[in-house]
Amino acid sequence: MVVVMKPGASAVETTAVIERAEAVGVSTHPIYGKEHTVIALIGDLTKIDRSVFNAMAGVQNTVRIQEPYKLAASTSHPGKTTIDVGGVIIGGSEVVVMAGPCSVESREQVLETAWAVKEAGATILRGGAFKPRTSPYSFQGMGEAGLKILAEAREQTGLPVITEVMTVETVDLVCEYADILQIGARNMQNYGLLHAVGKVRKPVMLKRGISGEIKELLMCAEYILSNGNTQVMLCERGIRTYETATRNTFDLNAVPVLQKMSHLPVVADPSHGTGARDLVGPMSRAAVAAGADALILEVHPDPDKAESDGAQSLHLDQFAELMGQLRLIAGAVGRSIATQPEAAVGNGRVKEAALA
Amino acid sequence: MVVVMKPGASAVETTAVIERAEAVGVSTHPIYGKEHTVIALIGDLTKIDRSVFNAMAGVQNTVRIQEPYKLAASTSHPGKTTIDVGGVIIGGSEVVVMAGPCSVESREQVLETAWAVKEAGATILRGGAFKPRTSPYSFQGMGEAGLKILAEAREQTGLPVITEVMTVETVDLVCEYADILQIGARNMQNYGLLHAVGKVRKPVMLKRGISGEIKELLMCAEYILSNGNTQVMLCERGIRTYETATRNTFDLNAVPVLQKMSHLPVVADPSHGTGARDLVGPMSRAAVAAGADALILEVHPDPDKAESDGAQSLHLDQFAELMGQLRLIAGAVGRSIATQPEAAVGNGRVKEAALA
Amino acid sequence: MVVVMKPGASAVETTAVIERAEAVGVSTHPIYGKEHTVIALIGDLTKIDRSVFNAMAGVQNTVRIQEPYKLAASTSHPGKTTIDVGGVIIGGSEVVVMAGPCSVESREQVLETAWAVKEAGATILRGGAFKPRTSPYSFQGMGEAGLKILAEAREQTGLPVITEVMTVETVDLVCEYADILQIGARNMQNYGLLHAVGKVRKPVMLKRGISGEIKELLMCAEYILSNGNTQVMLCERGIRTYETATRNTFDLNAVPVLQKMSHLPVVADPSHGTGARDLVGPMSRAAVAAGADALILEVHPDPDKAESDGAQSLHLDQFAELMGQLRLIAGAVGRSIATQPEAAVGNGRVKEAALA
Amino acid sequence: MVVVMKPGASAVETTAVIERAEAVGVSTHPIYGKEHTVIALIGDLTKIDRSVFNAMAGVQNTVRIQEPYKLAASTSHPGKTTIDVGGVIIGGSEVVVMAGPCSVESREQVLETAWAVKEAGATILRGGAFKPRTSPYSFQGMGEAGLKILAEAREQTGLPVITEVMTVETVDLVCEYADILQIGARNMQNYGLLHAVGKVRKPVMLKRGISGEIKELLMCAEYILSNGNTQVMLCERGIRTYETATRNTFDLNAVPVLQKMSHLPVVADPSHGTGARDLVGPMSRAAVAAGADALILEVHPDPDKAESDGAQSLHLDQFAELMGQLRLIAGAVGRSIATQPEAAVGNGRVKEAALA
Repeated sequence: MVVVMKPGASAVETTAVIERAEAVGVSTHPIYGKEHTVIALIGDLTKIDRSVFNAMAGVQNTVRIQEPYKLAASTSHPGKTTIDVGGVIIGGSEVVVMAGPCSVESREQVLETAWAVKEAGATILRGGAFKPRTSPYSFQGMGEAGLKILAEAREQTGLPVITEVMTVETVDLVCEYADILQIGARNMQNYGLLHAVGKVRKPVMLKRGISGEIKELLMCAEYILSNGNTQVMLCERGIRTYETATRNTFDLNAVPVLQKMSHLPVVADPSHGTGARDLVGPMSRAAVAAGADALILEVHPDPDKAESDGAQSLHLDQFAELMGQLRLIAGAVGRSIATQPEAAVGNGRVKEAALA
Repeated sequence: MVVVMKPGASAVETTAVIERAEAVGVSTHPIYGKEHTVIALIGDLTKIDRSVFNAMAGVQNTVRIQEPYKLAASTSHPGKTTIDVGGVIIGGSEVVVMAGPCSVESREQVLETAWAVKEAGATILRGGAFKPRTSPYSFQGMGEAGLKILAEAREQTGLPVITEVMTVETVDLVCEYADILQIGARNMQNYGLLHAVGKVRKPVMLKRGISGEIKELLMCAEYILSNGNTQVMLCERGIRTYETATRNTFDLNAVPVLQKMSHLPVVADPSHGTGARDLVGPMSRAAVAAGADALILEVHPDPDKAESDGAQSLHLDQFAELMGQLRLIAGAVGRSIATQPEAAVGNGRVKEAALA
Repeated sequence: MVVVMKPGASAVETTAVIERAEAVGVSTHPIYGKEHTVIALIGDLTKIDRSVFNAMAGVQNTVRIQEPYKLAASTSHPGKTTIDVGGVIIGGSEVVVMAGPCSVESREQVLETAWAVKEAGATILRGGAFKPRTSPYSFQGMGEAGLKILAEAREQTGLPVITEVMTVETVDLVCEYADILQIGARNMQNYGLLHAVGKVRKPVMLKRGISGEIKELLMCAEYILSNGNTQVMLCERGIRTYETATRNTFDLNAVPVLQKMSHLPVVADPSHGTGARDLVGPMSRAAVAAGADALILEVHPDPDKAESDGAQSLHLDQFAELMGQLRLIAGAVGRSIATQPEAAVGNGRVKEAALA
Repeated sequence: MVVVMKPGASAVETTAVIERAEAVGVSTHPIYGKEHTVIALIGDLTKIDRSVFNAMAGVQNTVRIQEPYKLAASTSHPGKTTIDVGGVIIGGSEVVVMAGPCSVESREQVLETAWAVKEAGATILRGGAFKPRTSPYSFQGMGEAGLKILAEAREQTGLPVITEVMTVETVDLVCEYADILQIGARNMQNYGLLHAVGKVRKPVMLKRGISGEIKELLMCAEYILSNGNTQVMLCERGIRTYETATRNTFDLNAVPVLQKMSHLPVVADPSHGTGARDLVGPMSRAAVAAGADALILEVHPDPDKAESDGAQSLHLDQFAELMGQLRLIAGAVGRSIATQPEAAVGNGRVKEAALA
């Protein structure tokens, strides 16, 4: 960190800064320029609060040189982290596709979608049982009944399940049913929840908040990692900007930026990122081309009747067509789309019987 | 709501929209234009999900005409809501000033600040015992010990206390000590927490998220109101924009906009809004001039040593000077700064003894 | 357009709106709801100023249903517009790559780069002779001397030239040398300049401003088109958001959105869009995967010594490697990278002699 | 400036940076930390291009310590700059109010408005003869005929005139009629135009672009100042954010920030800043409370019929009422509203005769 003193800062003020830094075991290197004195601080700064220095008399501003997250930084881990979810590897050479409905609405809807996305080549099933909704008057999700339906779909199809956990009180409950815990965008900085999922031993997919900076996303991952859970993946799902032609601005740049700054796998969510079915195809192809480790996509057997997010959900046949395109793009960047592991074949019941 | 069909939408598609709307008891008025057919929906639309219609075949987009919140809207309440906090009225003709440290750090710090802000004219004491912090390595607050210190300060000075509640599990605990529950910006859309504070009978101050739209803030207030708690005040505390000269962009426009759209009292937080001590004075004066019902300000006996937000905290003497200026501005807009009610005099101990 | 009256608007106010609309030849359809009266306006609305209605007594707001641009809209043109630049077709099935230095700095620099990008497969040469710079103390470009160098490079290599025009006074001058006129992001809404390039008969590439909405970009294209120049292409080059990990937020979503809303060819500029060399590769691949008709890329023989934008310029060998990757991606989406037309072979001098 | 080397940067890379800096006469101070080497550059850095260093091998990033503008910075000028416009002083202890219609539409409209705002206490007349409009199909202003009307209004009322200049070619023409040249938000970075108005000897009011950073606004002012025109005032008029409840987000924080960073007078434009008549009153009061040196306000005798910006224009009587409120606020912050100088009384014709 560098502390920049104001032009005309007094020697007393400069000394106060130096003493304060040295009091916490940091060595200091003052440089006396024509207009400013600048003090470089060298040592372990993770516990230093910049605002303390910003607020000291005679200080103009401070400049961070090292990032304040450690465990999430690419420098802390040799190579990339890979996460094994029932034999599906996220963060490796293969690109994983997670797909399913936005909300769990009924047993039939989930089972039909699960079988369809499995046949098209998805290897993880998504679906929400607890739904954060903008309006208190909207459908709020099926709760535990929804989790049971997801578990049944997993049993039938062999697809591991990712689903959102919204509150500390339901972490244990969701852990009983889910293979990956999703932290939604609105909860990116819900520190109590981050702390709680840091204590469990399930993979976590942490979504970037709609106004989350990339470095804040990494700091939030650090909350989970520093509590002991090393299986964290990061998800770009669109940010809020002035542009209204899309529901959000899907910030695909975050994919290569995160790949560079961190060792954690990076997931792209073009469904929420764009909010429009027509854009999900092009932006999914773009996400694989940009280097995403996984995609998470909303698919519904009848999107016009979906309880939530129908406008951004793919029809089953659109999803199948997209999977074919993604295989070509993955090949063009030297990767392939992950396929279901041999061992994960579901309970052996045929689809037709299951859906009967 | 108006549903705009695509140019060339078929009669079947148009009929499907009409039938779907009428199925939920809404009457429809189709208008056949040269390029588009437009269908106006008339009736109670609060439970209609626009995205359902957006996703239907042949639909180009939908346009909202009535706002989806009801209880928070100015039309739902004659005149303004006023909230009585131990005799201090928020939302009336007087402007209320809440002041105190960002974090509770020690008994001495809180008592010294409480007496000082009381003497300068504040009528509510602020202070955080549970602190949401960006870094897991930063000071996270004193917890219940901090709440006890705030309660002691109230007993001595007679100032009611506002403090943040961050999790559902601690709502009851915070209610034991606080006079106003604060929901922080990061939790604006933490629906579980909004639900929980909607069930208690304490006033709540709901802060706008850093990427919260004004109408979203009102929808979040609706979560609390629709759970039965009518004592809600709204707080502008800065939004995230591209501008970096200030920590946030304090959106003072929200004050008159909220006064127009809602009957709930409006609080301004220039400390977090600007993030810089030098700007707190001008923007506090501006907030009163723009019509805020209350201000919440960070004050610290030694900001350079504050555990959090030192850079935006006023010194005790700066706060006293500002109070004088605010009285003049309040007078210029036909209001005055609220004074401590006769009945609320604290426990009668003199300040000197209390601090000894 | 729909005019929404306030609850309680009087019959006189409603009649005034109806009469005003009908006075300009628009037919009106009032709908009387429980809370609001809504008036639908049907007819040619391109010359109607919404703010006039917004400001009328009793009006709550107005809602646009048709877009205000006509010539730029996809509905105005059968299929896509293609632009022929010396035999290179932009907007067709092939993806065109434009490449070259940010600024023209010297004859050697331009010729070396031109030959290198030609050999790697680019078919259009970019380079700036007039440079808009944030600081008045920075290098402002070589002016006409720079244009002459670009023309010489075209003569040698046969590559058509795209270069920026910044002022109305220099439109004629730049037309003498350039094959495509570039309007930079800062000038997107410089209406005098748009008017001037609308009068010439050269293709124009219009860049989106850093705070330009997509619909504003189309309105600016409308300025050029309505002055008679039909050869307009649109360029996404990054927008300003709160995120600072990238210089701008390259809004790749704009590519499929523009393809849907307009018939004009869409160009992506990942160099300015991201501002960082490491990100140009992934985002170029993503842009082709998302459906861009062309890329414009900054390439420099020695980026560390570039007068401008060195940090985002590719080295010559990086560019050649990227071209190979782009061919694979183009193939994966059923397109190919455009190759130089037979007729455009330059002046026949061998590269070695030219550079000697 | 500080250059931060990557962890593991080689001695050769570090030396290259040092040599490059010293080659342009800047002295260097390398500091060798545990993870990074950091090189402080001391000396005159205004002509150094940071991106050159950013792009060098082994460099992680660079950090600016001194601002790149000099003439606009508060450090370059003792006290504040004051600008004398026909005896009206902008930047002194009095707050100046400029008022008038958005567009010049007719002689009657301008004269009626000019007399009304003069009587209410405005001391400068605003009005646009050249109008930048989003749509090519909207009213584009009366041009020189409009300038003549403004000049006649000045002659009658004695109010100096501020009007926008949009192009380099019309700078001389506008100078013939105007007392202050306005550079509009869309042209903040139109460097050709900034250069041109830097060469004339008329005061210039430079508006912040809707996505202009405060430091960019100061750099644009630097373009004018460095060309020799020292009479520059800065105007906040709203920025583009995600919030849509207001047309723009009027960033009032910019007023105290600019007062601190620069010696140039600061003007606030709540009409464009908010885009809504109801908000102009509260935000005008707030702007004076926050320390603005002047306000510029849109006033129209019949806003419902205005050719542009009717929705944000005050009625004549609203403006008169607001002036009374502003006098009270100015008094509360120790200032007053400027009154017309004795010498500037117009041509002595009585208003009634003039308007007959």
